[in-house]
Amino acid sequence: MLVVKKRFAVQQFRFETGVTLPVEIGYETYGTLNEDRSNAILICHYFSGTSHSGGSGYLEDPDERTAATLRPGWWESLIGPGKAFDTDRFFLISSDVICNLHPRNPYVVTTGPATIDPQTGEPYGMSFPQVTIRDFVQIQRQLLDFLGVETLYCAAGPSMGGMQALQWAVEYPERVRKVIAVITTGQTSAYTSVMPLQIGIDAIAQSPQSGLLLASKALTIQSDNKLADTVWRENASTSMPYQTAIEEAIRKNIVDADPLHWLYLARACQTFSLQQGFDSLQEALSRIQADVLLIPCDTDRLFPPEESRCLLEQLRKAGKNAEYYEFSSQRGHYAGVLEGEKIAEPIREYLLRS
Amino acid sequence: MLVVKKRFAVQQFRFETGVTLPVEIGYETYGTLNEDRSNAILICHYFSGTSHSGGSGYLEDPDERTAATLRPGWWESLIGPGKAFDTDRFFLISSDVICNLHPRNPYVVTTGPATIDPQTGEPYGMSFPQVTIRDFVQIQRQLLDFLGVETLYCAAGPSMGGMQALQWAVEYPERVRKVIAVITTGQTSAYTSVMPLQIGIDAIAQSPQSGLLLASKALTIQSDNKLADTVWRENASTSMPYQTAIEEAIRKNIVDADPLHWLYLARACQTFSLQQGFDSLQEALSRIQADVLLIPCDTDRLFPPEESRCLLEQLRKAGKNAEYYEFSSQRGHYAGVLEGEKIAEPIREYLLRS
Repeated sequence: MLVVKKRFAVQQFRFETGVTLPVEIGYETYGTLNEDRSNAILICHYFSGTSHSGGSGYLEDPDERTAATLRPGWWESLIGPGKAFDTDRFFLISSDVICNLHPRNPYVVTTGPATIDPQTGEPYGMSFPQVTIRDFVQIQRQLLDFLGVETLYCAAGPSMGGMQALQWAVEYPERVRKVIAVITTGQTSAYTSVMPLQIGIDAIAQSPQSGLLLASKALTIQSDNKLADTVWRENASTSMPYQTAIEEAIRKNIVDADPLHWLYLARACQTFSLQQGFDSLQEALSRIQADVLLIPCDTDRLFPPEESRCLLEQLRKAGKNAEYYEFSSQRGHYAGVLEGEKIAEPIREYLLRS
Repeated sequence: MLVVKKRFAVQQFRFETGVTLPVEIGYETYGTLNEDRSNAILICHYFSGTSHSGGSGYLEDPDERTAATLRPGWWESLIGPGKAFDTDRFFLISSDVICNLHPRNPYVVTTGPATIDPQTGEPYGMSFPQVTIRDFVQIQRQLLDFLGVETLYCAAGPSMGGMQALQWAVEYPERVRKVIAVITTGQTSAYTSVMPLQIGIDAIAQSPQSGLLLASKALTIQSDNKLADTVWRENASTSMPYQTAIEEAIRKNIVDADPLHWLYLARACQTFSLQQGFDSLQEALSRIQADVLLIPCDTDRLFPPEESRCLLEQLRKAGKNAEYYEFSSQRGHYAGVLEGEKIAEPIREYLLRS
């Protein structure tokens, strides 16, 4: 399955802060929208993810197709013909967020602090307005309007993507039938707000480039329970350990990343709460019309299963149709992306159920 | 109970690395050594602790006694007349480690990177030799020799103090009768080696002073499960959170701290393994003659109870007399210091048992 990266531009995007700016995001689609436009699924990406969630490769221009660009999507294990998100059956839309972490990735389209401000000819930098998960949902809503998709059969995503999926159901209750929220939370905890998010923000504020490395290391170690175990022991001399291999692995992931985009995304995640804008979480949840499936990982340090269980309980208290599937992995948080096969069956079954 | 801070100096202390330097540490004693010198207990301090573990105040010189110095010790809940470590019954020795975090605290005596190198008239800085938990045990052993204490009735401590207590039993099996190792581990995990220790080391290497703040924040958040919860929400404006109060709390704790001392202590903890110097952990543990009591806290993120259970199993496999008492707290790691009353009874009972 080859995919084409498309560009969606809003001339006057109004941020939650009230500021208005031109904003662009990239998106991909897989599968075909059916006649009654009832089979659309929105896939929302995680913190360091992109709109390339599925498809075996990119194809902007057939002449440009190279081996390097034919990389699997980050949820390749779940997205494709016959897979859990079955592209023979569903029409999938996968979009970049505003302030995507990788503005220098040629297959990411995003607007953020690294974007040139047309007024000054310089990057926006810290003058870029603070973004929120609701801003991400807002521009996705405009993208769906543009694509002629009134109702989502499902909004889904892992981690920060799951926040967006849940926020969709609160923000546009009549437009979402199902939500699949993987390894996520209904409100970022104080612990995760500080460790790793504020630690990373502080490091970037001190020194953007070396701070980005430290921030990414903190986030990665908190997200991937195996990375430290695998890398630390083999590289640590007992008298003077230094995890060169962890750094190497992380440097690769941030080669096209921008420190201020990391900082802005971290703030968006810190401030995430479904309650935002309502007097209580119950009031926010009571708006939801969608069925909700929560899928936490048992060893997740960022968003431990307790948080999903707490949200499940509150959804049910609000009379919603909420389900819970906890899967097991030694990997921790990242298992929700890296071990998609473990959650394929519950997702497939949930999507086929009427 | 007023205590006097004493100074112990070794003219030619030989570090594990082989380097020899003059080293001084501070110590306090509580209670009285009995005639057959059989009632001595060594209290070892945690990462950011000092030799002031008990006693209601300092008294170097009666004329110098001020309210400011009359602070309770960090294990005041456990140390004193009639308390778990009963100073009417036992003779307690509590010493500073080499590279103690607080070289500018007037009641700490330590030698480390912030100490003036007599050869150059400048601080040692990074030319100071790397220290290990075994170095801490080594100078404590010399202190005990000086005090005429051949055998410890017990070696005890929380966290990094527990590492020392366990290392004592491996290093000098014939000199330790009991070990009480609270909220600690037999080998620092890869996770804790990176988060928070390497994150802190990296931050300090980038910028010593602001790095020290970040390092301490990371360590504190990982150690105190309540601090983030308490402070984050009340100070976070939803649009732009910043945990000023967390920073304020942490700044107070590091006012007399030195960034390089943090870095050196972090490395000492990263490299800690009872196996160090032996072919296997079993071989190391088989040397132990002491009875061992392990006391983890159920919500500890730095040294989770699994690590104590694992050590317990290996001690028993090696035929040792090992016991386990897991206590419960929402506070996490620091509960082993801050909620001493929760572990007072098992410690009292363990010490009285013959």
